[in-house]
Amino acid sequence: MPRKNAAGPERRSGCPLNASVEILGDRWSLLIIRDMMLRGFRTYKEFLGSYERIATNILADRLQKLITHGIVTIHRTPSDGRKVIYSLTPKGIDLAPVLTEMVLWAAAHEDTANQPLVREMRKDKEKFMSAVRQRWAEANRVPRRLPRRP
Amino acid sequence: MPRKNAAGPERRSGCPLNASVEILGDRWSLLIIRDMMLRGFRTYKEFLGSYERIATNILADRLQKLITHGIVTIHRTPSDGRKVIYSLTPKGIDLAPVLTEMVLWAAAHEDTANQPLVREMRKDKEKFMSAVRQRWAEANRVPRRLPRRP
Repeated sequence: MPRKNAAGPERRSGCPLNASVEILGDRWSLLIIRDMMLRGFRTYKEFLGSYERIATNILADRLQKLITHGIVTIHRTPSDGRKVIYSLTPKGIDLAPVLTEMVLWAAAHEDTANQPLVREMRKDKEKFMSAVRQRWAEANRVPRRLPRRP
Repeated sequence: MPRKNAAGPERRSGCPLNASVEILGDRWSLLIIRDMMLRGFRTYKEFLGSYERIATNILADRLQKLITHGIVTIHRTPSDGRKVIYSLTPKGIDLAPVLTEMVLWAAAHEDTANQPLVREMRKDKEKFMSAVRQRWAEANRVPRRLPRRP
């Protein structure tokens, strides 16, 4: 039975895999998430300069969709209120196992590059994902305010 | 650097994740693979009748792409040479971890159904995937010919 989700449109079925492909099933969303997760990209300009040369209108559309689905969040930098940065939400970083398995599958069956990344994943998948999660937690830590002196 | 793959078109980058999204990054391919992997579907008619109501032209296109990428293979049934059945190749069944992680992610973060499947995956992911692989191996076993009597 079709289900409604928080993002609005009715789903074609209640199957969890269908939910995933309706949210992530395109050529670009997972690449943007990869750039945030593994390469620490945070700005529109960085995403635009990535290897696969995403078009600017597609990037804007996908970022908006990822925000709508609660995978990406947007902030203004404290130092410059006009500068916008993007980061993964907890729901976004929870995609680390999906990305890892997709990388391992392609590395096993297709002619691909970036073997150091693949070796690291193959050696200890859990350790790799835990390091990814830790880097994310550190980058997203809210700076602690110094207590004011009385 | 863009790379060629066996299927012909030049890739946008050598990144293994990019290879995966170029092959699987649409709304339908992984649903067809799910129907073969988890529901034992083997015929065009079965895929067409699945929950998400794929259109016939999209189904034909995606099956052809999956065959081109070596994920799906096509046979004629021994009993009726006109009847065509589809099955996952070893490369196709190797997508079990990708599908499993996508299901677990959506089940954790979206409003989805099919909780018995999710419970089984959560309880023991490795056991679940090993059962999937075993069912596939049994369904694809070449029937042994009986030795002829001298």
